[in-house]
Amino acid sequence: MNKNKKVNAAILIIGNEILSGRTQDTNTATIAIWLNSIGVKVREVRVIPDIEETIIHTVNNLRKVNDYVFTTGGIGPTHDDITAESISKAFSLNYEIHKQAFKILEAYYKPGEFNEGRQKMVWMPKNANLIINPTSGAPGFNVENVFCLPGVPSILKSMLGGLTNSIVGGEPILSHTVSLRTVESEIANSLTKVQDNNKDVEIGSYPFFQAGKLGVSIVIRSQDQSKIDLCSSQILEFVKKKKIEVVDR
Amino acid sequence: MNKNKKVNAAILIIGNEILSGRTQDTNTATIAIWLNSIGVKVREVRVIPDIEETIIHTVNNLRKVNDYVFTTGGIGPTHDDITAESISKAFSLNYEIHKQAFKILEAYYKPGEFNEGRQKMVWMPKNANLIINPTSGAPGFNVENVFCLPGVPSILKSMLGGLTNSIVGGEPILSHTVSLRTVESEIANSLTKVQDNNKDVEIGSYPFFQAGKLGVSIVIRSQDQSKIDLCSSQILEFVKKKKIEVVDR
Repeated sequence: MNKNKKVNAAILIIGNEILSGRTQDTNTATIAIWLNSIGVKVREVRVIPDIEETIIHTVNNLRKVNDYVFTTGGIGPTHDDITAESISKAFSLNYEIHKQAFKILEAYYKPGEFNEGRQKMVWMPKNANLIINPTSGAPGFNVENVFCLPGVPSILKSMLGGLTNSIVGGEPILSHTVSLRTVESEIANSLTKVQDNNKDVEIGSYPFFQAGKLGVSIVIRSQDQSKIDLCSSQILEFVKKKKIEVVDR
Repeated sequence: MNKNKKVNAAILIIGNEILSGRTQDTNTATIAIWLNSIGVKVREVRVIPDIEETIIHTVNNLRKVNDYVFTTGGIGPTHDDITAESISKAFSLNYEIHKQAFKILEAYYKPGEFNEGRQKMVWMPKNANLIINPTSGAPGFNVENVFCLPGVPSILKSMLGGLTNSIVGGEPILSHTVSLRTVESEIANSLTKVQDNNKDVEIGSYPFFQAGKLGVSIVIRSQDQSKIDLCSSQILEFVKKKKIEVVDR
């Protein structure tokens, strides 16, 4: 852990099913929450289709300007799973059978079940590091600062724990939420002043509806708990003056 | 409607709360499904933080290479709502009070309630076209091929219907799903052949778990129903030969 360094990541969601609206992406939130807990901030997310040149171009852009890139999707056995081959091309590495991955899947399946379709899942960029999959056998992989994960949310989730030691983050990104029975326009000016007084803290304002009533959640984010506490007390000060109710949420 | 033209769009989700994982984006799917129905294909989605230069840079990139750009978020009354000002800068337009929007909100609120916070929501790029908001008053806006919508999903949803006439799409993008009681590796080779025989149709393969059983949904997408039907019959042919069960889903 490097206490002072800001560590950034990009998430790259690969899959036509997200772009068509057929499938709701949930992997972004899963990865982002995990990354925040190990001190990595997600700076951008992109969703792109299963098109080789788009994947190559996007990965090569993102990996140069971010400390880490996490891709999801496209590492299964079917024709639309082209992430491993595209990443190989992005890094100008051979796309070949990964011996360790082959052994893992050979042992995972019953004799005779490790067929040609499944064998596609052990083709990877040469010398890729494997990301172990405790749910369904087929590993993800990592080349330099790019980590390739599957698209199925439950499988992806099960693989993150094993990855934590491979990521060097900063201090965990902390957050505190103050929820109020008010509307944004009532607190906008006061909140702007608090933000101006605390420029290196991220303050977000999010309206909500709960049990038929309007409210606003103010979310304060920083790697420094004392800065969050200071902001929070300044917010509660104007909340008290304005006689706004603080609510649980 | 232009029957032969391919019409593309990008979606730009603006908001720290999505990047932190606090809020699950659902607007992408809502916008994509609506766009598909009016013959517009979503080519990419980006999620970016509430940082002015990032918004300006990203909007200017996306609007040059896509027929349409739809942004969500950042048009409310608080300090972190910087979309309207950023879009003004992206187009080198004055950021000023929009008279029509002012009249709408003046009429919408009770006398005395149209306060300074709320008045921020009528500041827009000069001469922007308004996007009417039937839910909560404050309109979105459109400059050239960029359409700016709010982040709150229910409000955004209510505004799309009124936008349909502003978008010139192609033929609606149709899709058909064949769900099978099998695993991807069993059908991967046969499916590759169908894709090779139908290169201009998009065929996706998505594993699912339903009532404790594994399955695969094959999604066929095209603007031409007859091409979907042809693909579908070729898939059902190999499905029958392999004695795979077709399931409802």
